[in-house]
Amino acid sequence: MPYFIGGVTADHNRLIARRPEEFKSLNGVELLTGHRVVSIDAQGHRVRVADLGRAREFDVPYSRLLISTGARAFVPPVEGAGLEGVFTLRRLDDSVRLKAFVSSRRPATAVVVGSGPVGLEMCESFRRLGLEVTLVEMAPRIAPTLDPAISEKVLSHLEENGVKCLPGQAMEAIEGSDGAVRRVLLPSGAVEADAVLLAIGVRPVTELARNAGAELGAGGAVKVDGGMRTSVEDIFAAGDCATTTNSITGEEAWLPLGSTSRKQGRAAADCMFGGHGDFPGVLGTSVVKCFDMTVGRTGLGEREAERAGFEPVSLEMDAESLHDFYPGGGAMYLKLTADRPGGRVLGCQMAGDLRAAVEKRVDVFSVAIGASMTVDEMRYLDLAYAPPYSTTLDVPIVAANVLAGKISGRECSCDWHGME
Amino acid sequence: MPYFIGGVTADHNRLIARRPEEFKSLNGVELLTGHRVVSIDAQGHRVRVADLGRAREFDVPYSRLLISTGARAFVPPVEGAGLEGVFTLRRLDDSVRLKAFVSSRRPATAVVVGSGPVGLEMCESFRRLGLEVTLVEMAPRIAPTLDPAISEKVLSHLEENGVKCLPGQAMEAIEGSDGAVRRVLLPSGAVEADAVLLAIGVRPVTELARNAGAELGAGGAVKVDGGMRTSVEDIFAAGDCATTTNSITGEEAWLPLGSTSRKQGRAAADCMFGGHGDFPGVLGTSVVKCFDMTVGRTGLGEREAERAGFEPVSLEMDAESLHDFYPGGGAMYLKLTADRPGGRVLGCQMAGDLRAAVEKRVDVFSVAIGASMTVDEMRYLDLAYAPPYSTTLDVPIVAANVLAGKISGRECSCDWHGME
Repeated sequence: MPYFIGGVTADHNRLIARRPEEFKSLNGVELLTGHRVVSIDAQGHRVRVADLGRAREFDVPYSRLLISTGARAFVPPVEGAGLEGVFTLRRLDDSVRLKAFVSSRRPATAVVVGSGPVGLEMCESFRRLGLEVTLVEMAPRIAPTLDPAISEKVLSHLEENGVKCLPGQAMEAIEGSDGAVRRVLLPSGAVEADAVLLAIGVRPVTELARNAGAELGAGGAVKVDGGMRTSVEDIFAAGDCATTTNSITGEEAWLPLGSTSRKQGRAAADCMFGGHGDFPGVLGTSVVKCFDMTVGRTGLGEREAERAGFEPVSLEMDAESLHDFYPGGGAMYLKLTADRPGGRVLGCQMAGDLRAAVEKRVDVFSVAIGASMTVDEMRYLDLAYAPPYSTTLDVPIVAANVLAGKISGRECSCDWHGME
Repeated sequence: MPYFIGGVTADHNRLIARRPEEFKSLNGVELLTGHRVVSIDAQGHRVRVADLGRAREFDVPYSRLLISTGARAFVPPVEGAGLEGVFTLRRLDDSVRLKAFVSSRRPATAVVVGSGPVGLEMCESFRRLGLEVTLVEMAPRIAPTLDPAISEKVLSHLEENGVKCLPGQAMEAIEGSDGAVRRVLLPSGAVEADAVLLAIGVRPVTELARNAGAELGAGGAVKVDGGMRTSVEDIFAAGDCATTTNSITGEEAWLPLGSTSRKQGRAAADCMFGGHGDFPGVLGTSVVKCFDMTVGRTGLGEREAERAGFEPVSLEMDAESLHDFYPGGGAMYLKLTADRPGGRVLGCQMAGDLRAAVEKRVDVFSVAIGASMTVDEMRYLDLAYAPPYSTTLDVPIVAANVLAGKISGRECSCDWHGME
């Protein structure tokens, strides 16, 4: 949606992944749009359905039931959140309304509240549309789920691109006149705003599941196992409304992301039709484009590793995606964390030029971490080398070499140029 | 070197990875250039060294010795291989001479013999320089180490870019006049050539090691174990002169590549100084840019898997790197092979637009194959998703889903759009 609003994607209809017709064309699928499930009778194995168009209700029986009610945007309980010009971005309609508002009202200033992926993407989109943008973050730093060193890179890059960043500011109220937003009140003072985007996160939609007796778990989401089974027999849940597992720590987690939802959906289907459906969980991998920077992460940050009981040892390093004799490469910065006893790789966070293909290196780390590799094993990865694509030893291998040296206490010239 | 010849890299000096001064500046390293080792006295632990400048010889003692003599270009025993205008591309000097030849003689036509990575890169470089290019390959198809389906994509792309391809043609002779090359004789007739590049591969340089009593192995290279130990005590070998292991089949292999050499060098150093140095071998990963196409592979092809005793099952699929709502993506074609009993992923080969970032997907497969993952495990990889970088489920996950379906016999709409 941020790319539709910013004008990168011209038609919002192209954002629709599946249309009702596609489901209707499938054998044995009956699709009811404009209907709401009112309640679940878990004992009787049936759901009560309201036909919203005709104000009537009826029962639909099930052998197995999947709840995939997703999440809703979180709107903080501050005054003025209902003013015209204050938006969240969750449903396709939200983006259409925001886009229409920008076109018709020509706002000059926008305040983005929250510096997660959606907040960062929207800073870029608002700037593309020519608005003055202020990014407000309650936590003491921008992109607070990232390591401080990476989050500092993001802050600098946002400011280079004309985004005014205000970390450590909890929004106190939104003020307007004539029903339309005018300013956002912060501890440090008021910030002018013709438009406000609340990108503070989402909350799982769990009312139905809860009322059916399903236990909730991390983040208040519906607690499920690797087969997407809830605590209620024959009821499954998948997607943003369901919990998952951090597969490094084994702890229950709630990390609503589209890629995870799709995998959980497949796991649920496998399990509902008699298979194993053993979804192993997630590593917390994510990537976001922020102007000309790619920011990505996978696995645990240093602090998270510590809290999970590991003994983290980290490496921070500047690196290049290509040899300097081949044009088109880019610079990146990475922080790699491993567990000192044994050297298991726990996480990596990176920020770099778009040209540095940070996303490629994040995926290499993600697969390696998912396979419980050690830094010593990563030193010998057989990655694809040719000058247009990487240095002879690509960044993940060089980083593993340096961190392995640090763990073993070997003397080494711990920088990119010395090691590659 | 192909990029220096083609003009992408302006200065050949930038291709030098390490200069003598760098070694000289290291504590405890004595560097002798312009010297040749004449023989090794393994019993007496010393090497006989000839000072080429002063015509004198002397002995240098060692506790442990590393042989890293590399490989030399293979020149086939055909008439005319010594004519002016016939080149190989192995040492930096070779590229300087070829580049000078092109600048001074302005050749109009070039014949490239051999369609491995160097041959493909040089077709592009010669075309950039405005030459008419004919690519000759002895095997029945271009890029014969690739799967037939991928090799066909490469052939089409070469021809679209004006390269005349002649597979199944074993060069019979090279003809010239006044000492300079004029044509290449093939079974199908003569091809005009003002320049000929022999890119038929390399052979390991093993004379010294052999004379010291070291056993040879795959490809005639010096046989080494995971610690780079040769069969002679205290003598190690690494790089293009040494064997390696195919870590999928466990078989000895010889696959001379720069990235492998660097890793073997580190493994040898570890082992020579008392560490384990347990280099696990290679997966046969490679990537090459061929005009606007990236061609990559990792692991075993279907035929190779069969020969190694697996029961391969494969999937061929067209895919896209990005959702169609985000600009800048590219199309790719892949062949994924797994072992039917158990579903272990054995190999993947891909060809796609430069924009499709095939190299990123090859690396994901490489790490997964190195970790002995099954297609079922790959379905749940936690890869980094955002619209500028991939589809919600990236190609490796979709491919694993489809191949898992094929193995389990589940009915599925086995194409990209149906699954992603």
